[in-house]
Amino acid sequence: MSTQARIVFIVSDGTGITAENFSQSILAQFEATFKHIRVPFVDSPEKAHDAVSSINQAASKYEVQPIVFTTLVNPELNTIVGKANGLILDMFQTFVAPLEQALGVKSTHAMNRLHHNADTEAYKNRIEAINYSLAHDDGQSNKNLAEADVILVGISRVGKTPTSLYLAMQYGMKAANYPLIPEDFERGQLPKDLIPYRSKIFGLMIDAERLSEIRNERRPGSNYAKLENCRYEINEATAMMKKESIPWVTTTSKSIEEIATTVLQSMKSDKTILG
Amino acid sequence: MSTQARIVFIVSDGTGITAENFSQSILAQFEATFKHIRVPFVDSPEKAHDAVSSINQAASKYEVQPIVFTTLVNPELNTIVGKANGLILDMFQTFVAPLEQALGVKSTHAMNRLHHNADTEAYKNRIEAINYSLAHDDGQSNKNLAEADVILVGISRVGKTPTSLYLAMQYGMKAANYPLIPEDFERGQLPKDLIPYRSKIFGLMIDAERLSEIRNERRPGSNYAKLENCRYEINEATAMMKKESIPWVTTTSKSIEEIATTVLQSMKSDKTILG
Repeated sequence: MSTQARIVFIVSDGTGITAENFSQSILAQFEATFKHIRVPFVDSPEKAHDAVSSINQAASKYEVQPIVFTTLVNPELNTIVGKANGLILDMFQTFVAPLEQALGVKSTHAMNRLHHNADTEAYKNRIEAINYSLAHDDGQSNKNLAEADVILVGISRVGKTPTSLYLAMQYGMKAANYPLIPEDFERGQLPKDLIPYRSKIFGLMIDAERLSEIRNERRPGSNYAKLENCRYEINEATAMMKKESIPWVTTTSKSIEEIATTVLQSMKSDKTILG
Repeated sequence: MSTQARIVFIVSDGTGITAENFSQSILAQFEATFKHIRVPFVDSPEKAHDAVSSINQAASKYEVQPIVFTTLVNPELNTIVGKANGLILDMFQTFVAPLEQALGVKSTHAMNRLHHNADTEAYKNRIEAINYSLAHDDGQSNKNLAEADVILVGISRVGKTPTSLYLAMQYGMKAANYPLIPEDFERGQLPKDLIPYRSKIFGLMIDAERLSEIRNERRPGSNYAKLENCRYEINEATAMMKKESIPWVTTTSKSIEEIATTVLQSMKSDKTILG
């Protein structure tokens, strides 16, 4: 066993992004280092042969078979790439066969069926949701809050912006976000623009130590970043959320995807689930 | 064969987002309608049994086995869910066994190895990239353009903002974007802030008919949306990109993921590939 990174190819007739994400998840289960090479848009025999050449070259150079995740719809291209000198993990055929049997129909073998849906209503909604979330980032606008699918609230630097954008980008949700600021705590009330929409509000929270660290990177040595001030804001925000019966999640060591999933679960407005 | 949507469960010990994306890609190959139900964070026997109950209930209610994609690292939980009354497609074990053999090591069976990396450098870079891309959206700031990994340019409504945000969110790339406006065409030059960074510039282009449609949704009946005006801006932008040797991609019927992948391929700055 060398400590050299093992080469991993992702060969796809689409973007290969999903297969790449999957390969990263599964390979994270192994105590080894990997170097991912994504080969997207492999939609012709020429490109399939090019992919095979790259794989074979890597096999020779490193004297070990690369790992090759494939998602190729076309059987001809799949056969070509399947002959490369690598450990072929065929994400597509592995599951298509049992699905064909269960569904009692053959798969269409049409490339890019999903990704060429750029003209669909769902796709337009997604773009519209991104625009909405940008326009309603950090309380920038109190217009059209009635249209929001969710309104994230929380003190500065808890992760409201990335989570809102992710919800819009991945799920086409109109996700507004609103900061909770010291003035709100002094008044002891939610920002008044939000009061009519309480049922759509979800809170983000964070540990004081982590928040202080994040704020210190942004404004080193400021009162804003001081642990004591972070503790004060967190206590006040927590009290307000309890008083207003707003559900919240602690973001401290969660990824954007985990925060977004938790918000969806709690709001029970997971469009994918309910739609 | 009924026309009723077939139920698809995604049962994961993490967010299940990758498995959900994958199931959507593969099921797009079948002429049928599907209803996806994502069951995330299944990290205890109790939650695994709950998932099984939901699957079994759906099987009884619709009198047909649901399709069940699983990504469960823990063998005990995997065994529990594997007994549900569904067509079980085990994305995890299917590939772990051949990987263990090829790598000569056992998988760690550690849940959330990837997603609990919220404190890593890569994760911080991702958040920083999102903030950068937001601050450099639509030419808002010409500061720190030297830090950009890529600068997208194009006329209004070609898809610069969603693509920039996607590149930041998915790949941690600092993606700025800059509009090309009639004043730039009159001068016959790129915006002068961009000139030092020509090698990082990538163009987005679109068909005139589609652009006119998109702009009409935003400002119905405006000169801005008129087909003739769209044609003019597209011609001028194309001439400028040719003159300045800027590569570009036509976004007309491409998804955000496809545009982003094309940008990465062309820039050869795919951090995942080169990193």
